[in-house]
Amino acid sequence: MKRRSFLKKSAKTAAITPALGLSFPAIAKNRHEWRMVTSWPKGLPGLGTGAERLAENITKLSGGRLTIKVYSAGELVPALGVFDAVADGTAQMGHDASYYHLGKTEGCAFFTSFPWGLTANEMQAWVKYGNGQVLWDELYKPFGIRGFLAGNTGTQMLGWFRKEIKTLEDFKGLKFRAPGNQGKILKKLGAVPVILPGGELFTALQSGTIDGAEWVGPYNDLSLGFYQVCKYYYSYGYHEPGAALQLTINEKAWQSLDNDLRFLIRTASEATNHDMLAEYNARSGPALRTLVQKHGVKVKALPEEILLECGKAANEVLNEVYESGSPIVRKIVLDFLKFRQEVIPWTRISEQAYLNARRLPFEFKLNI
Amino acid sequence: MKRRSFLKKSAKTAAITPALGLSFPAIAKNRHEWRMVTSWPKGLPGLGTGAERLAENITKLSGGRLTIKVYSAGELVPALGVFDAVADGTAQMGHDASYYHLGKTEGCAFFTSFPWGLTANEMQAWVKYGNGQVLWDELYKPFGIRGFLAGNTGTQMLGWFRKEIKTLEDFKGLKFRAPGNQGKILKKLGAVPVILPGGELFTALQSGTIDGAEWVGPYNDLSLGFYQVCKYYYSYGYHEPGAALQLTINEKAWQSLDNDLRFLIRTASEATNHDMLAEYNARSGPALRTLVQKHGVKVKALPEEILLECGKAANEVLNEVYESGSPIVRKIVLDFLKFRQEVIPWTRISEQAYLNARRLPFEFKLNI
Repeated sequence: MKRRSFLKKSAKTAAITPALGLSFPAIAKNRHEWRMVTSWPKGLPGLGTGAERLAENITKLSGGRLTIKVYSAGELVPALGVFDAVADGTAQMGHDASYYHLGKTEGCAFFTSFPWGLTANEMQAWVKYGNGQVLWDELYKPFGIRGFLAGNTGTQMLGWFRKEIKTLEDFKGLKFRAPGNQGKILKKLGAVPVILPGGELFTALQSGTIDGAEWVGPYNDLSLGFYQVCKYYYSYGYHEPGAALQLTINEKAWQSLDNDLRFLIRTASEATNHDMLAEYNARSGPALRTLVQKHGVKVKALPEEILLECGKAANEVLNEVYESGSPIVRKIVLDFLKFRQEVIPWTRISEQAYLNARRLPFEFKLNI
Repeated sequence: MKRRSFLKKSAKTAAITPALGLSFPAIAKNRHEWRMVTSWPKGLPGLGTGAERLAENITKLSGGRLTIKVYSAGELVPALGVFDAVADGTAQMGHDASYYHLGKTEGCAFFTSFPWGLTANEMQAWVKYGNGQVLWDELYKPFGIRGFLAGNTGTQMLGWFRKEIKTLEDFKGLKFRAPGNQGKILKKLGAVPVILPGGELFTALQSGTIDGAEWVGPYNDLSLGFYQVCKYYYSYGYHEPGAALQLTINEKAWQSLDNDLRFLIRTASEATNHDMLAEYNARSGPALRTLVQKHGVKVKALPEEILLECGKAANEVLNEVYESGSPIVRKIVLDFLKFRQEVIPWTRISEQAYLNARRLPFEFKLNI
């Protein structure tokens, strides 16, 4: 779902806003008025509304001691300028995805979703009860910010294709819009990864500039109308098995808060993490049904032969990230892999085993 | 994990505490000192520590305006007396599992985990973004309490068996400790469901009084030492695919709170919901490894033939619950089934598809 889109779009429309040099004026003793910049267009379902609810919740929970005003993409800074805006103090808070900033450090990938990595629940387990948060703090420290998990889309869809994908050959030369590490994986398989703004996806698909594109999942994708151009909607979303969103906070602003407000922010973020996932899970089923029944979309699973190659290519990318990585990136990769190896045996015999058992051919309905 | 255990145990040790008739004295204007009674022995990992963190979080978030003192099982009321204690005002708050109270209404099952029902994430989606909370409020209204999701163990284990289960015949006459609806299911398959306190499980298994037992999962089960008596540890935990814990609140106490404190309680509960699940997911993998590598436990999957029969039997139980149910129970069953049918197609092509793809035979490790 990485989208240069909003960056490009906002660069045209937004006022030029370099570091404003504001000093986070306390409006009274122990009262704070903060800005939260986000990567989301106003009212974007799930991601945008989730960020807005988070800001509102912090404001309400603090009884107005910490008031947060939300800026959508381009209102104060460009969509992909959130990280910098929080780092330089233009805003005290930001809401976006860590992996929009792979250009700063490849470590960012692991706090959104690394291909073949952790699900939403496994991610929360790693960050809170593993070493995730400590490593994340270390990664972001040089930038003068902190990151917290603040929302998750759950497992995303692999994306939209105009034609069916039957063999690995069908991937060769396919111009496919895909972000970061997924782009690198697809390139290894012979596809041509394209980075394009979300707002330009529909047109690019329609004109044939690209042959397919990944975005989020049914709840978001339905509204963008991709079904009008592409009839094939593929899982498996191995590239983003539990895409997390982040709340970032300027370190000086963080230090200016009393401990109780810091605790309040952590709690509100954690609640948002679950809340956003619940919204996606509740709304994706009905959206999927609409796509299939009303718009004739064909839901497909990537053939295993190809999926296996995606796995092999992802392993190459993982090794490249490690080999070229800074000490902290290497630490993150090692710990992420260790946690993954510990959690998978449990996931397999618990939720995964159950989900598969739920497919057995018995009736589960009322005899009425 | 239903356990009469704590009830029995506490009945012996706890002081007799009928409704205390306390009037929730505000210790100052807008300040409250509340009691939270729980079903958990002091310090019980996951469930108990989760309830304690929830109480502590509410106290901290409110800046001491709402101070909560936690009572473990038997300290103020017996373990299974939490519902009544909150209803009659002995305590303003309780933390336990809704399905401990099937005797009051069969509707309680759906707010913990109905066999073959919703996973932890699907449950949160139903309660918050479906009709779950509204129906729950209606179900609990006659009892003078409110219920909120406040923790989840994730998918549990089917349980511990002394002997391997190979065919349906092996289930016949098997004395197996299992709660509520799972007990009814196993009975239909010829097993003899036994209800026994958790604290007596080890002895009952050792003496041969029972042939097997379900409890929670590796994180909790390891500490109880079942591996010393039973070597077979079975999935699939279809009977509790995402067992939720509840925070209950006395209605009069709830009404005495300002809106902002009510909002704070809701947010803290929601954070706890994700937090407890994260703890179980982080700690279950290592506990499972210890069980297998150190204690020689054999992890098994229930044969499909039997699992299918468990599905058919569960459908009979579901229909019995509906047929004998009050109007609100019937409304809950209908809505629960509708949500289940809407969410499953999405779960299948998202997280479930990913989890299965993650089993493909490719390496995902560093070449170092």
